[in-house]
Amino acid sequence: MFRTETCGQLRLADTGKHVTLAGWVQRVRKMGGMTFVDLRDRYGITQIVFNNDTDAALCEAANHLGREFVIQVTGTVAERTSKNANLPTGDIEIIAETLTILNRSEVPPFTIEEDTDGGDDLRMKFRYLDLRRPNVRRNLELRHRMTIAVRDYLDKQGFLEIETPMLVGSTPEGARDFVVPSRMNPGQFYALPQSPQTLKQLLMVSGMDRYFQIVKCFRDEDLRADRQPEFTQIDCEMSFVNQEDVISLFEGMAKHLFKELRGVELTEPFPRMPWDEAMRLYGSDKPDTRFGMTFVELMDILKGHGFGVFNSAAYIGGICVPGAATYTRKQLDQLTDYVRRPQIGAKGMVYARVEADGTVKSSVDKFYSQEVLQEMKKAMDANPGDLILILSGDDAMKTRKQLCELRLEMGRQLGLRDKNKFSCLWVVDFPMFEWSEEEGRLMAMHHPFTHPKDEDIPLLDTDPAAVRADAYDMVINGVEVGGGSIRIHDSALQAKMFEILGFTPEKAQEQFGFLMNAFKYGAPPHGGLAYGLDRWVSLFAGLDSIRDCIAFPKNNSGRDVMLDAPAPLDQKQLDELELALNPSEQAE
Amino acid sequence: MFRTETCGQLRLADTGKHVTLAGWVQRVRKMGGMTFVDLRDRYGITQIVFNNDTDAALCEAANHLGREFVIQVTGTVAERTSKNANLPTGDIEIIAETLTILNRSEVPPFTIEEDTDGGDDLRMKFRYLDLRRPNVRRNLELRHRMTIAVRDYLDKQGFLEIETPMLVGSTPEGARDFVVPSRMNPGQFYALPQSPQTLKQLLMVSGMDRYFQIVKCFRDEDLRADRQPEFTQIDCEMSFVNQEDVISLFEGMAKHLFKELRGVELTEPFPRMPWDEAMRLYGSDKPDTRFGMTFVELMDILKGHGFGVFNSAAYIGGICVPGAATYTRKQLDQLTDYVRRPQIGAKGMVYARVEADGTVKSSVDKFYSQEVLQEMKKAMDANPGDLILILSGDDAMKTRKQLCELRLEMGRQLGLRDKNKFSCLWVVDFPMFEWSEEEGRLMAMHHPFTHPKDEDIPLLDTDPAAVRADAYDMVINGVEVGGGSIRIHDSALQAKMFEILGFTPEKAQEQFGFLMNAFKYGAPPHGGLAYGLDRWVSLFAGLDSIRDCIAFPKNNSGRDVMLDAPAPLDQKQLDELELALNPSEQAE
Repeated sequence: MFRTETCGQLRLADTGKHVTLAGWVQRVRKMGGMTFVDLRDRYGITQIVFNNDTDAALCEAANHLGREFVIQVTGTVAERTSKNANLPTGDIEIIAETLTILNRSEVPPFTIEEDTDGGDDLRMKFRYLDLRRPNVRRNLELRHRMTIAVRDYLDKQGFLEIETPMLVGSTPEGARDFVVPSRMNPGQFYALPQSPQTLKQLLMVSGMDRYFQIVKCFRDEDLRADRQPEFTQIDCEMSFVNQEDVISLFEGMAKHLFKELRGVELTEPFPRMPWDEAMRLYGSDKPDTRFGMTFVELMDILKGHGFGVFNSAAYIGGICVPGAATYTRKQLDQLTDYVRRPQIGAKGMVYARVEADGTVKSSVDKFYSQEVLQEMKKAMDANPGDLILILSGDDAMKTRKQLCELRLEMGRQLGLRDKNKFSCLWVVDFPMFEWSEEEGRLMAMHHPFTHPKDEDIPLLDTDPAAVRADAYDMVINGVEVGGGSIRIHDSALQAKMFEILGFTPEKAQEQFGFLMNAFKYGAPPHGGLAYGLDRWVSLFAGLDSIRDCIAFPKNNSGRDVMLDAPAPLDQKQLDELELALNPSEQAE
Repeated sequence: MFRTETCGQLRLADTGKHVTLAGWVQRVRKMGGMTFVDLRDRYGITQIVFNNDTDAALCEAANHLGREFVIQVTGTVAERTSKNANLPTGDIEIIAETLTILNRSEVPPFTIEEDTDGGDDLRMKFRYLDLRRPNVRRNLELRHRMTIAVRDYLDKQGFLEIETPMLVGSTPEGARDFVVPSRMNPGQFYALPQSPQTLKQLLMVSGMDRYFQIVKCFRDEDLRADRQPEFTQIDCEMSFVNQEDVISLFEGMAKHLFKELRGVELTEPFPRMPWDEAMRLYGSDKPDTRFGMTFVELMDILKGHGFGVFNSAAYIGGICVPGAATYTRKQLDQLTDYVRRPQIGAKGMVYARVEADGTVKSSVDKFYSQEVLQEMKKAMDANPGDLILILSGDDAMKTRKQLCELRLEMGRQLGLRDKNKFSCLWVVDFPMFEWSEEEGRLMAMHHPFTHPKDEDIPLLDTDPAAVRADAYDMVINGVEVGGGSIRIHDSALQAKMFEILGFTPEKAQEQFGFLMNAFKYGAPPHGGLAYGLDRWVSLFAGLDSIRDCIAFPKNNSGRDVMLDAPAPLDQKQLDELELALNPSEQAE
């Protein structure tokens, strides 16, 4: 061992102790005949003192230390004269006796402190230095403690962690797979799993009863801020359960995590909201319920008064922003610009202020009498000082999603999206299918193995689009932290599902034959859930992106800029795999 | 919940309780007017009784149950008249009141019992049924408990579990990589990690101090019984440590696992054996030390006596097999055939029996006087009744490896390789390099980041082949269960190492530039170890192959026969990746 204690360990009670510490030089300060070195490791910072009067050569050596040098120091613990209350070790310092430079450092490309001067690209290229910053390190420590807490909870509930393979078969249904050419089987490919969905169902067929796995999953999608090509799932499945059992067990796990990792005791059951209510009130299947401003539909009140935009609309809805009547014209114009951005796509925004005397002033006053506006005020439950914001459009679902963005933006502007407040709920009763314009057919909203609600099974034959599923998502602060469903365990029902999804029996057999065959040998009723680990950690750490809770993340082009991966292969490797690049160019 | 209790839970104290159970039909027996059903789940087997006199219809339904049907039964717990001491639930049975068939089953292709009639191929194709067998299930339960114990130990020692990426860069040095084409970066590939070696070193540079990860690793090698293309490593790294620290901490972990999972308390320190001693005494760097029969070199005694084979040999060595002088000529011929098999490759075998009167009878008596043979007997420490087996050859290392195989075979034949006996040791002081005939250069025996022993560093310039490394393997019962080393943390030493390994500075920069750059910014002294999880589980479960402790293993062609993976891709997927198959054929 290069040390007897860490840099976070020594206290006043250790005064007089002879110790050896090792770590990184955070800072060197000269004051009079003394040189002070802040020595840092994962556990903290300890001040080392070199006295020019006692040992001039040693002090001189300390004066030549650079930032991020790795050093080893022996010395004696002494009480500080000027204590630092901000540091756990702030009552003591080490009077240095020897100094060994274990490794030198070039000047780092950015400062290794909580607030750094390094931009995103630089920090990612030198991620190993970025990870030295205590705030980044704390995210990884939280992630570690979270997986410990998850495993502890699930183990106590009788779950077995079982590893499923990473090299599986490709299933073109759903998102795009990453694939892996097989050298031993030329012309054939493995795929990396998008999730262990079918494998965990096979584990239920095999009688494992309660399975979980904290597991890497892969999706070859174009990336956004909160997406990574590889991400980590807390993947769970249980046998002989119904929806209530799964919800209750995993709500228990969520509460366990809140208590263990955030010290938050959640005693009430999480509210449950049917999917259609979430869409109606929030325009989202993952509503942020930390604040109100739920949607009020205004079709009955605002249609038929000469305002053409509303008259031709398929949906008119508004939110009441409490106390925001003070918004200036400029602020309102900025909001209009916000909803008009192509990512949101609204055509415009109508607003109305409730004055101190209760009258309503709107941007479309010429079309509406005060009587109608008062009716609207009442419907919106608006009070003097409130601001009413209204969107309309010819596609109700699209307009709701635009209004959702506006609501979230108002929540942000009013400081209602407090990262230290948590609002949890279950969204339930998802539709079984959604229509895909692109494919011209119904697609599974969750996946093809989701069980329809028993009472809706007859609708499969008559009105499949109306069928609801035994599917549920857990939503916290507007983030979908997990979701799951009861699965189909009956091969006839599964076959019908594939039929509705447009699979020929041959195609279904080709892609999911292994699962349908397994169902012939006594599949138990089962269901499960998958939590997104990256999202949970981000939520608890108060991060805006999952990237900062991942040790070595990829950028938006799917590159690891530190490793410089991906990269071209040697021709020898391509030859062994019997692959050629860029066939389109070669054909020319 | 489909049940109030599991099938392993009810005891005599529960008599009279009204319960609901669910599970699989293991067996149906009719006896007189009664039908007995053994109901099985992960937790056990409970006997259900249907009485024809009480409810003829219910009993009739039970009579029609098939093996592996999934059923739900309600009834009352009753004391059995004829108890089954072999079952934890054997004192009770359930007097059935209702029976619900949750799912039917076709007749399974093999019996779902510990001793099954299913061959390997069939069991792998229907692995989900194979996993229902209690002995296979227990392997996965052991694996689960082992990972819990590992994480518990390492967490308490201050290790952080940190996930490293699965999509990394390819490093042609070493074994073959599995690669993943990048759609977003056409013509470029990720590789799946053979181990997180360089990433965990970067985590040490980043100050994480103590890292571990239970992680999938990938090697595209031709497969043998104990190899899988994907396998799981317990990967660990520590900063500010020397070899002694790493060995001591991970010996502690091994002892923790033995105690927690096998109830074996190992109090003594594990012996340490230098690599050259292991090769000299056992002909192996992973000797099975459960039994003796160590090698005795016989060059001095047996050379120069007219026996040409020995006279021209570069190595002559023997083992003394206690009490095996009774081996018949036929058995000895079989042993000769054994060492002559191409996998072993010896030219022949010489043997000598020590008779009851102490005289030695050998297969080469005509060349040796009794005096010489007595000298040999003494060197071998052989006693009356012992058998001496001798191999020779013109390559000492090859001959030792052949003698190693012979020793292991004799250990097996004499029942000395008891799966319930454990003999642990550290093999230390590995050579830094080994000569590769194929490459015509020195190769790193562990990997290029291994630290040479301090006292051997001067030899790097004068006699690199003689340099020993701070590298260590843990060996149990002849299985290398883990290994590691102290790493180089000095970029100049690392550069020299690459030079000896034949890397140009450009090539070293291209492949490991990210690591060498990182070393410029204050890399701490560090080292670590990786344990093979699959091997540990196999060892503790007494398995001959790691395959049976993996839920869904691949066969020797790297195929998952259950999933039928790998498989050809859709042309659309190939086009998106800008790849073409089989360029050699296309070129024709």
